[in-house]
Amino acid sequence: MSDKPQGGAGLRGQVAGETALCTVGKTGTGLTYRGYDITDLANNAQFEEVAHLLIHGHLPNQRELEAYRKRLAAKRHLPDALKEVLERIPADAHPMDVMRTGCSMLGNLETEQSFDEQDDHIDRMLAALPAVICYWYRYSHDGVRIDTDLDDDTIGSHFLHMLHGRKPSQLHADVMNVSLILYAEHEFNASTFTARVCASTLSDIHSCVTGAIGSLRGPLHGGANEAAMEMIEGFNDPDDAEEKLLGMLERKDKIMGFGHAVYRDADPRNAIIKKWSHALAEDYGDTSLYDISERCEEVMWREKKLFPNADFFHASAYFFMNIPTKLFTPIFLMSRVSGWTAHVKEQRANNRIIRPSADYTGPEHQDWLPIDER
Amino acid sequence: MSDKPQGGAGLRGQVAGETALCTVGKTGTGLTYRGYDITDLANNAQFEEVAHLLIHGHLPNQRELEAYRKRLAAKRHLPDALKEVLERIPADAHPMDVMRTGCSMLGNLETEQSFDEQDDHIDRMLAALPAVICYWYRYSHDGVRIDTDLDDDTIGSHFLHMLHGRKPSQLHADVMNVSLILYAEHEFNASTFTARVCASTLSDIHSCVTGAIGSLRGPLHGGANEAAMEMIEGFNDPDDAEEKLLGMLERKDKIMGFGHAVYRDADPRNAIIKKWSHALAEDYGDTSLYDISERCEEVMWREKKLFPNADFFHASAYFFMNIPTKLFTPIFLMSRVSGWTAHVKEQRANNRIIRPSADYTGPEHQDWLPIDER
Repeated sequence: MSDKPQGGAGLRGQVAGETALCTVGKTGTGLTYRGYDITDLANNAQFEEVAHLLIHGHLPNQRELEAYRKRLAAKRHLPDALKEVLERIPADAHPMDVMRTGCSMLGNLETEQSFDEQDDHIDRMLAALPAVICYWYRYSHDGVRIDTDLDDDTIGSHFLHMLHGRKPSQLHADVMNVSLILYAEHEFNASTFTARVCASTLSDIHSCVTGAIGSLRGPLHGGANEAAMEMIEGFNDPDDAEEKLLGMLERKDKIMGFGHAVYRDADPRNAIIKKWSHALAEDYGDTSLYDISERCEEVMWREKKLFPNADFFHASAYFFMNIPTKLFTPIFLMSRVSGWTAHVKEQRANNRIIRPSADYTGPEHQDWLPIDER
Repeated sequence: MSDKPQGGAGLRGQVAGETALCTVGKTGTGLTYRGYDITDLANNAQFEEVAHLLIHGHLPNQRELEAYRKRLAAKRHLPDALKEVLERIPADAHPMDVMRTGCSMLGNLETEQSFDEQDDHIDRMLAALPAVICYWYRYSHDGVRIDTDLDDDTIGSHFLHMLHGRKPSQLHADVMNVSLILYAEHEFNASTFTARVCASTLSDIHSCVTGAIGSLRGPLHGGANEAAMEMIEGFNDPDDAEEKLLGMLERKDKIMGFGHAVYRDADPRNAIIKKWSHALAEDYGDTSLYDISERCEEVMWREKKLFPNADFFHASAYFFMNIPTKLFTPIFLMSRVSGWTAHVKEQRANNRIIRPSADYTGPEHQDWLPIDER
């Protein structure tokens, strides 16, 4: 999504700290996690390897990966009190509010008492947050109390299994894996920065992640894939898409899923998810939403030299996997929690409280005025 | 509390935006809210007038204040689903985790659908957050389901009434009023900045406040009055306090409640709350905790030229009102929500997403390494 200045400072270009986790728009195809190119990771890795890389500093070997998978799989159950809370959240709630509340409630039941425990709590959040959203969704929408303690190999498969009540196909499992890798980390974006500001007060890990969820919820940040879906759903076929899109451009409507605040020529995540969206379209047996998306890409480039970002082909990809649109941002969250928590660990390891200054624009000294003289 | 650099940037001295709400360490006695000196406000105003000043931009006249009080008093009931959530949080939970979860849950039940609604939700949070903490505290500690829909005139009295099950004395009501005024606003501190970063994504008001609560929870930010209480409780009398404090200074222990990141010679809030702590001590009939606190002040100035900040005499003041130590930071929150939400309104009115940069300190390009070669 393009990020036009609307006033205010926004700290754009100001350095707010150091990180060893990520570069955006600097080297390789444009996005690296601890020096590894996003394309290499998406083509070769499991999401669990990437989470391990971000959170624990290196790609795991076979033994470490097996142990990590087992640890994560053992942390998928939800405490009864958390399930009872989720059951009290209505079906029309905002799914990111559900995630924010679920994460916050988990912090009441399993509080981080010391930073020595941080890795255990991070494992727990990676494993349990997909369960939080699926438990609430299935209970509030289908009236079903699902068992979240399933034996799927990966976080992506576990999510699809809980959501649809059956193990996913290999293709769907592969796409979820890639999707989680693409969304895992993106330097000092607003939600990650929220987590770091919170961490800088030496608050607990659940506060950091709860705060980050609240920021990711914002339509300028996490909601672009949902907005892209809502747009392409409204197009009947590629020609209809072109006509309507030209109309939107003429009216200067905001078009979600195109352009980026940092990338200038392309978002390196787009080519990857686009390829998978195409494979899903063939598998789905009706490629029309993919064809519509591709036409949008052509028109936006021809008319505005704007390229699709990570979010745009995610919309059709998730659609082909029968994922409800309202769960798109929660999937982003299930992935990004790996980057957030890696940043929290980094902030804690070299901390100074984040406390900027402000330019004062208010009134000079005002004398007190008793209420009957106002 | 002193804020020593420990590495990391912390954005110290960097301007992160504009505000018309507050100056710290610049004019008057050192702290102004929209140009009014904190001393004038604490000596003359009701907290509701100050909240109105911060959130709505001006001191209310009599008619506006009456209407504002009525609006707030009408919003003290808690929805059943929120009460059920609070009943599922154990007695040994961190009270700030309770507040974070209560605020987040409220956002599920009464979601801000448009910024046009922001003032209504802010009223609701000002009125209901004291009820959230008291409902949980009394249920989890005393097994009582309190009625939060009481007819007290002010937020401070309402809080004490719910906590103790009876209307407070005039003295206690007056001190709570002053305390809420002193904690209401403090420019771009870490919790307020968290709220603004969240607001900059155009997220909802409950996300902004929930995130801010998580940052205020951190021991470098909101916990100083509790830590001061724990320290002075361990002193038997003034001489004992002096001896132990000298020992702590010799061992270079951290002493909470003294010094400040911005103020250099005095915290203007200290003289105000100290005077009220003295009045409470006389009323309580045993001044020893006040005498101990005063001796600490003398010793810290003599030995280290450090002055008490807003938190130090708050500890004894709250003690004399029989407020449990674990509720000190939640009171800070009940007050600061006025400042946070005023900042959210200000950020929304002139927004650019807050997205700083980072200095990259990680590895250069890493070639992908298959798992069996690691």
